[in-house]
Amino acid sequence: VHPYEVIKKKRDGGALSADEIRDFIAGYTRGGIPDYQMAALCMAVFFRSLSPAELAAWTEAMLHSGDILDLSDIPGPKVDKHSTGGVGDKVSLALAPLAAACGVKVPMISGRGLGHTGGTLDKLESIPGFRVDLSTDDFRRIVRDVGACLIGQTARLAPADKKLYALRDVTATVDCIPLIASSIMSKKLAEGIDALVLDVKVGSGAFMRDLERARELARTLIQIGRGMGKRVTAVITDMDQPLGRAVGNALEVAEALDVLEGKGPADLTEVTLVLTAEMLVLAGTARSTVDARALVERAVADRSGLKKMADIVRAHGGNPDAVTNRSLLPQARTQVPVPTAASGFVTGIDAEQIGLAALALGAGREKTDSSIDPAVGVVLDRKVGDAVKTGDRLATVHANDASRITEAVQRVATTYQIAAQPPARRPLIVERLDAA
Amino acid sequence: VHPYEVIKKKRDGGALSADEIRDFIAGYTRGGIPDYQMAALCMAVFFRSLSPAELAAWTEAMLHSGDILDLSDIPGPKVDKHSTGGVGDKVSLALAPLAAACGVKVPMISGRGLGHTGGTLDKLESIPGFRVDLSTDDFRRIVRDVGACLIGQTARLAPADKKLYALRDVTATVDCIPLIASSIMSKKLAEGIDALVLDVKVGSGAFMRDLERARELARTLIQIGRGMGKRVTAVITDMDQPLGRAVGNALEVAEALDVLEGKGPADLTEVTLVLTAEMLVLAGTARSTVDARALVERAVADRSGLKKMADIVRAHGGNPDAVTNRSLLPQARTQVPVPTAASGFVTGIDAEQIGLAALALGAGREKTDSSIDPAVGVVLDRKVGDAVKTGDRLATVHANDASRITEAVQRVATTYQIAAQPPARRPLIVERLDAA
Repeated sequence: VHPYEVIKKKRDGGALSADEIRDFIAGYTRGGIPDYQMAALCMAVFFRSLSPAELAAWTEAMLHSGDILDLSDIPGPKVDKHSTGGVGDKVSLALAPLAAACGVKVPMISGRGLGHTGGTLDKLESIPGFRVDLSTDDFRRIVRDVGACLIGQTARLAPADKKLYALRDVTATVDCIPLIASSIMSKKLAEGIDALVLDVKVGSGAFMRDLERARELARTLIQIGRGMGKRVTAVITDMDQPLGRAVGNALEVAEALDVLEGKGPADLTEVTLVLTAEMLVLAGTARSTVDARALVERAVADRSGLKKMADIVRAHGGNPDAVTNRSLLPQARTQVPVPTAASGFVTGIDAEQIGLAALALGAGREKTDSSIDPAVGVVLDRKVGDAVKTGDRLATVHANDASRITEAVQRVATTYQIAAQPPARRPLIVERLDAA
Repeated sequence: VHPYEVIKKKRDGGALSADEIRDFIAGYTRGGIPDYQMAALCMAVFFRSLSPAELAAWTEAMLHSGDILDLSDIPGPKVDKHSTGGVGDKVSLALAPLAAACGVKVPMISGRGLGHTGGTLDKLESIPGFRVDLSTDDFRRIVRDVGACLIGQTARLAPADKKLYALRDVTATVDCIPLIASSIMSKKLAEGIDALVLDVKVGSGAFMRDLERARELARTLIQIGRGMGKRVTAVITDMDQPLGRAVGNALEVAEALDVLEGKGPADLTEVTLVLTAEMLVLAGTARSTVDARALVERAVADRSGLKKMADIVRAHGGNPDAVTNRSLLPQARTQVPVPTAASGFVTGIDAEQIGLAALALGAGREKTDSSIDPAVGVVLDRKVGDAVKTGDRLATVHANDASRITEAVQRVATTYQIAAQPPARRPLIVERLDAA
């Protein structure tokens, strides 16, 4: 197969064969096909999309570019959750222990963040001693014995995706549903899971701004997963403002612990419980989402989720006391209140601006080799729908570097929209899909 | 300007500013912008096209990536002709001396061929001693003193186009009218011309298969040229079969000499005279195409065109006697007739197959560093519309390497279509455009 012919065929709207796709992706991963030919193909895919058959072949080619974990010797259903991401999304931190406490095996391979705040791994590393760079053997052992393990992607899982994502990122071909979906699924299917719950975020703070695009992504992800023989459910959830109140690594860990103690913010708690319940249904641990929800709520009430979190922290080399003693988590030296100059109702909080405020404080990475300050971030004391009076505290900036405070406060203050009338309520759990 | 933003803007159908285009092309030419970002941008341009303003900026950026010849010190109008190319197109070889004989200055910078047969330069080099690698000073002198000079593109003229064309060639972004048009015009405008005649080929043997696309290309080329203050006329000519009878370097030179002597094939003679007449009109040498035609016909009849060809050959270091003594041109050792097995009328000759037959004999390059055999090729003894009887000679294969004869004969024999009824006549000169 000549790479030129493959690009031309896709460009002209033709259907690529599984062989053509496999050879192209394998050639690209090995370096025989140069970046510029893959860039041209990705842009052609942006305009022409991929058929279900092409998408399956594309994802399989990416999946088979590296190792695929085999967890079949671990008893019980292995279920993971993937979120398309958004500011303040720390759901995994509470969901993994809750699902494990309910008997589900959770082999979770996560990414690090670039921009805004850290990824799940960065958040976990704010727990003293917590290590995410475990071997595959340790990963397997912890999933089996503890029930959940959260590690970083290794170079051996879906290397094609790693290389391709870096290319898409600089060629304006990220924002393309078949390429997004095959990227997500190739990494998740490499984990050796039996089933997957997808949290597809929609709204101004999410990658998918409108519901139709979110639905299309959800259906595409389900279609790929089903095609590979996996059970997949997708939940579309609202991301019009940051999820929960905390944005910043240790601050988000603390908030996830609040959820495990039954005292988390309502929105974060609801999304966490809904997604965990879906995992239980897919695992066969519960017959219905209603039954599953009851099991998850019990794991909060009896603190078995919190206890499981301590077990996970211990297994990862971290200090399990930090789970109950918050003073063991990193604390920022300065807390600066952000007051409002107006009275009325909060009608909008731009999630991206809050993320950029946290980034300015040092909570995220501007470049892949930047270091993260685990203690800093922003806590939203008021959220959309809350009533405020002039002088009320809207949010609190947690800072270590005084020179970075001004930009953060400025960004937070100006991104709050205050109006005389309360905003229309938006549903938090927008839609549940279990068929492509 | 961030290259990513430029790609994304074009991908999403936005209009790029002249600054964005200039910076992107300059960055690419210098190497600061990598091939993969240019490949993505070209594919986005394939789908989104370029507006007239973007196209002007793109062409100017390519033009200004290198030197622009200044021939303003040479008296008289400088006019060139460019053809989009096709098998058997040796028009330039007769047109340049005819136009020069009529007083037009013809500064012609040509390419070498890849595939099929050689380019104009390769054909000229089949004349003993003819050199095309002249200095800019020699080029200027010969244009001034002789009236026409034909040299190869230097690395200093439109280097952006050279680099971009190589990239487009391997990323399936050649077949894109704005990119084709800006490539052609950036090279031609670098020649320091005042006016340009375009021969846009249409038909199964041309790059543009249908008239609508050919018209679009012609209009786009005219639009760019006019925008740069040049006089431009386009003629759309038929290329449904090879032009003339000869395909192969020295064979084509001989046929061009036939045209200069007034005994060339009708189709080649007509296209040559029409295009040369257009050059005279643009140069102001004639007031109308009718007057111009009469002047060009006189240059054939009084052999001043042939004499001018001898002058050009001499100026290029070649043996001018070859112009009148054909035995001085390279001759192939073997002439193999290709007979027909059917009677009726020739209804079609696939130009590409004839080109591939010539390539198989060694008349063209399979790779950029292949060497060419100037003597070999194919002569079409019968053309579309001719009546044939079983056993008649359809064509003659001129070969030096006996091992290559079989493939060539096979290709020629099978590409002739013979039917009981004569084909409908196709107009040779399809259309003339002088406004975008």
